[in-house]
Amino acid sequence: MSRPLILVSNDDGITSKGIRVLVSVMKKLGEVVVVAPDSPQSGMGHAITIGETLRLYEEEIFEGVKAYSASGTPADCVKLAKHYVLKDRTPDLVVSGINHGSNTSISVLYSGTMSAAIEGALEGYPSIGFSLCDYSSKADFSHVEAWVEKIATQVLERGLSKGVALNVNFPPKQNEEIKGIKLCRQADAKWQEEFSERFDPNGRKYFWMAGNFVNFDKGEDNDEWAIANNYVSIVPCQYDLTAHHAISRMNKDWDWEYLKK
Amino acid sequence: MSRPLILVSNDDGITSKGIRVLVSVMKKLGEVVVVAPDSPQSGMGHAITIGETLRLYEEEIFEGVKAYSASGTPADCVKLAKHYVLKDRTPDLVVSGINHGSNTSISVLYSGTMSAAIEGALEGYPSIGFSLCDYSSKADFSHVEAWVEKIATQVLERGLSKGVALNVNFPPKQNEEIKGIKLCRQADAKWQEEFSERFDPNGRKYFWMAGNFVNFDKGEDNDEWAIANNYVSIVPCQYDLTAHHAISRMNKDWDWEYLKK
Repeated sequence: MSRPLILVSNDDGITSKGIRVLVSVMKKLGEVVVVAPDSPQSGMGHAITIGETLRLYEEEIFEGVKAYSASGTPADCVKLAKHYVLKDRTPDLVVSGINHGSNTSISVLYSGTMSAAIEGALEGYPSIGFSLCDYSSKADFSHVEAWVEKIATQVLERGLSKGVALNVNFPPKQNEEIKGIKLCRQADAKWQEEFSERFDPNGRKYFWMAGNFVNFDKGEDNDEWAIANNYVSIVPCQYDLTAHHAISRMNKDWDWEYLKK
Repeated sequence: MSRPLILVSNDDGITSKGIRVLVSVMKKLGEVVVVAPDSPQSGMGHAITIGETLRLYEEEIFEGVKAYSASGTPADCVKLAKHYVLKDRTPDLVVSGINHGSNTSISVLYSGTMSAAIEGALEGYPSIGFSLCDYSSKADFSHVEAWVEKIATQVLERGLSKGVALNVNFPPKQNEEIKGIKLCRQADAKWQEEFSERFDPNGRKYFWMAGNFVNFDKGEDNDEWAIANNYVSIVPCQYDLTAHHAISRMNKDWDWEYLKK
């Protein structure tokens, strides 16, 4: 059997430390092709590039690995990989990251890292987004490499349910070793923004957005709890957003006579 | 009882026809405040502006309505509205659109229109994204105004389940009148991209991304079917992406002995 084909992307950009670590682990498991943004794309959510052109350049960054930088978003990178770089070859695995910073809870919505993984999932490829809950560009990834390898190996061997991508978060490096893996649901939490109001040299007002994370979740089966307790969190994520429970409720509660044409 | 406070945003930009139509309908229902992007933001997904500054300017575009243009994404607009424009006032309804173009099926992921609605929902506000399945900037909205008013009225009266935003799509103007409303699930469909490869005047390669929509869904309970059959589609969408069925499967299928630390 030929070696698995593994597509690697991220949202911190092709020169970040996190993607170097991810590529080095994936090289043990298969043939690696990298298509990643040429600049940081944090907070890009599932953005794609419409109405603007895209650039794609071959890069010699990772030894023995075909690599391309793209001018677009993480989701663009997966699309370019599928339709232009890989063409008739189908990846056995799509991995994104390792993100410098947490993508637990509601951050999955804003996450460029996860958008690459979800884009992979909707093409039918087993896909994983990896994030380390440490925002430093020089973050220590040494304690997570073995976990990345194990989780990727499981996905290569066992596959994933249709329409599902894994959101994997790792606790930051601590004195104590990581305790293990928790399969989790997305925690009920959100960002509480603050806008810092300033004036430019021309006297015109501008804003910086900053956020404080607020966790409402008291459960122990969610990703926030797992990270806080030094476990790896894995949340399987779906891109079918339908809230089926709300359909039932609306069928019952709404005034359908009034809503007739 | 005071009039409801209604926050309006969109992703086509504050000068688009769709938002003018939406504002004119909402003015019948309550006090309207507009915070919308200063330029088109289609395909921005749930992007937010991190590491760059934001601008916000008061605009006199809509008669008798407080309106602001913002330099950021639709999600940024809702955050700016909450924390800066509205401050201590809580909107009774957040509406986004009316988008020039479809946001059915998988397009919900890429949709700036829906990101404003989902951002509203995660702040706990009843929120609706409206889209017309007609991409023309001069699209005819005359057949949807009454529907927008009815749906917004129902949401103001009955509320929405926690964590849910409505994705409402309208069929394009046809000879036959719209037949009614269908509560739907998100259709199983995707975009099949094509990249047009070109060379700039300096001989450097660039790409345009174009997409063809491919519908795999044979059901009649989804938004694609509703639009194709001249119904208004309403998909209640949730931002909790957890695929609970996948947790059960992974608990059973994965080799948890191997995955121990």
